Amino acid sequence: MEVKKIGSLLDSVRNTNPLVFNITNTVVTNFTANGLLALGASPVMSDAADEAADMASIAGALVLNIGTLHPGQVEAMILAGKSANTHGIPVIFDPVGAGATAYRTDTAKRILQEVSVSVIRGNAAEIANVSGESWSIKGVDSVSTDKNISLLAKSAANKLKTIVVITGQDDFVSNGENTYLNKNGHPMLTKVTGTGCLLTSVIGAFSAGHQDLFLPSLSALTTYGIAAELAMKKHSVIGPGSFLPAFIDELYNISPADIQQYSKIEEA
Amino acid sequence: MEVKKIGSLLDSVRNTNPLVFNITNTVVTNFTANGLLALGASPVMSDAADEAADMASIAGALVLNIGTLHPGQVEAMILAGKSANTHGIPVIFDPVGAGATAYRTDTAKRILQEVSVSVIRGNAAEIANVSGESWSIKGVDSVSTDKNISLLAKSAANKLKTIVVITGQDDFVSNGENTYLNKNGHPMLTKVTGTGCLLTSVIGAFSAGHQDLFLPSLSALTTYGIAAELAMKKHSVIGPGSFLPAFIDELYNISPADIQQYSKIEEA
Amino acid sequence: MEVKKIGSLLDSVRNTNPLVFNITNTVVTNFTANGLLALGASPVMSDAADEAADMASIAGALVLNIGTLHPGQVEAMILAGKSANTHGIPVIFDPVGAGATAYRTDTAKRILQEVSVSVIRGNAAEIANVSGESWSIKGVDSVSTDKNISLLAKSAANKLKTIVVITGQDDFVSNGENTYLNKNGHPMLTKVTGTGCLLTSVIGAFSAGHQDLFLPSLSALTTYGIAAELAMKKHSVIGPGSFLPAFIDELYNISPADIQQYSKIEEA
Repeated sequence: MEVKKIGSLLDSVRNTNPLVFNITNTVVTNFTANGLLALGASPVMSDAADEAADMASIAGALVLNIGTLHPGQVEAMILAGKSANTHGIPVIFDPVGAGATAYRTDTAKRILQEVSVSVIRGNAAEIANVSGESWSIKGVDSVSTDKNISLLAKSAANKLKTIVVITGQDDFVSNGENTYLNKNGHPMLTKVTGTGCLLTSVIGAFSAGHQDLFLPSLSALTTYGIAAELAMKKHSVIGPGSFLPAFIDELYNISPADIQQYSKIEEA
Repeated sequence: MEVKKIGSLLDSVRNTNPLVFNITNTVVTNFTANGLLALGASPVMSDAADEAADMASIAGALVLNIGTLHPGQVEAMILAGKSANTHGIPVIFDPVGAGATAYRTDTAKRILQEVSVSVIRGNAAEIANVSGESWSIKGVDSVSTDKNISLLAKSAANKLKTIVVITGQDDFVSNGENTYLNKNGHPMLTKVTGTGCLLTSVIGAFSAGHQDLFLPSLSALTTYGIAAELAMKKHSVIGPGSFLPAFIDELYNISPADIQQYSKIEEA
Repeated sequence: MEVKKIGSLLDSVRNTNPLVFNITNTVVTNFTANGLLALGASPVMSDAADEAADMASIAGALVLNIGTLHPGQVEAMILAGKSANTHGIPVIFDPVGAGATAYRTDTAKRILQEVSVSVIRGNAAEIANVSGESWSIKGVDSVSTDKNISLLAKSAANKLKTIVVITGQDDFVSNGENTYLNKNGHPMLTKVTGTGCLLTSVIGAFSAGHQDLFLPSLSALTTYGIAAELAMKKHSVIGPGSFLPAFIDELYNISPADIQQYSKIEEA
């Protein structure tokens, strides 16, 4: 893995300002838009079926997030997804809460059937649920070793024929053949809502204009995790309230040199 | 009132991370989720009728907030509320703007008819409107004495057979028999949108797993008000913009010792 | 242009706390409400057709923003707009993304046909699209000179019979006869989502209770731009994350004296 490539992908996001079209949940719209703007991308949000196909056709990447589903939004997701597929635009999918309710699990599976998805990002339980593995994180801590999560990422990537990104204490990217591990990040990310959702959209920003999304996905993870680490180094950060603006600042200020210095990537 | 009990209820929220299911308005979803996470609870937001009953059945508390109503959401609230009632899960209700439009007043009353609510939190005008008292805050300053608000809390609690929390310059909790007054808090809370809504959800976090919600409600008020006071003590806080992250930090950092030191609770 | 009048309009917002009713997009609801509160106005958000007319009738200004359109919301906008027209309440319109999709362009035109709008605020491309001028910003930098934007503002104001506000590197206000230019502001505003949307709502706050909205519109632009400049002077502001709370603080703290000292207004 040449870390320099990650830095040049970051530069490329900032130089091309890709339009990332997000059909996402109402909790994270503002945070996602601000995170994408800070990074250098151009966010647009909409969940209207009436413009979903049009908007997807002019986007650099489409992000589908099922965090606060409703029937009209699902229709918009399918229309946008099919339009993105037609136009060769990458689709990044975040199956928030798949497994928590039947509605979420069923919708996630429906999207995967009707839309060709390029990257799926979720926690281990969500990925297991959409890929049909039986898996439960809560209370089964012994199961969630790095080894097992790595195997889950690989098998899900093969089964779903996509790049799979599993985030948690460590983060994994697999294309079914190769699997990498990223150890950047900070537990404070779990104390701010939507940090997983924004990461999914950041993968979208890195993916625009690319065919093979393995390196863009790994680049997004690494950039994001280091930005969180840099934010936590600020003396003024004493909790999740002060972390949030500091993290957005770091997404804005992070440089290829920071990535070169701090990246923690391993083959899994 | 033993203030130590409030500290142990706070510890209990942090140790049990209760799932608080919020069907709430689109203005405050992000702020509410971040406030609950900072405090130690696990927030989930949804307003889909398709999963309302399922989600309520796995939650520790259900919060219904009518700040940006629409018909599908009302349906979700009723379904979630009935499911919570069936499963013995506390329902906390925030009748935002009841009295401002007929739609809000009617919906608030419909929810109170179809769902058994455990705690209602609102300002004096909202509580008066849902409990059928004639009351107007604007221009009738002489009426809103502590004495009158205390009586309103008590009569509404008796009429609606719930705990009633009325917030304003001072805050009141009544179960119809006992009424307590809390003087913690800071006027800057009125300059940030959704601080009332988040408080309602924090009452939800403190209520999870309890039968008698009088002390959990009073604990939520006290913790919340002291967190605001602690945030205002920071030199960097010079307006509502800097107050917001500082307040979230304090919800994260506040300790039982802070509560012991700063609580201002009186019998009303 | 007497700058002192801007300061007294700001004082008037703070003294009268006008109720600004926003039917706006889900990305900016929280930021808009917090910005309006900081300035001294009273925000309310709703997109329910069931209360749109009622809510508009009690508001000081109505703001319509099509950033995340859906059919029910459009219905609410029309109902609220007609009610505002009946009650003599100013309607401020933000045609977010007009021209990007047919749905947005068509909806913007429909609103302008069915509702009498007092002020429209957008970027040059949006204003051109709703006023039927052919215009494209991207890739046509030579076209977007101050001279041309000024002419666009004037012709759109005449065609649409409203005040037109065009924001960009410089900002323009035209009533079709007189056109003014404001050079306050800072590029960091473009790195935070919804700063255009909030500005539209701030125009609403300044417009409440006025018949001629030319000076209120110019006052809003000037106050907003100076607040951004003041925020950027803070040493703690190092990116869009720290800018956001600092900007809200400045909307809260900005004084008529600041406006007197920093305003950059010219006749265009």
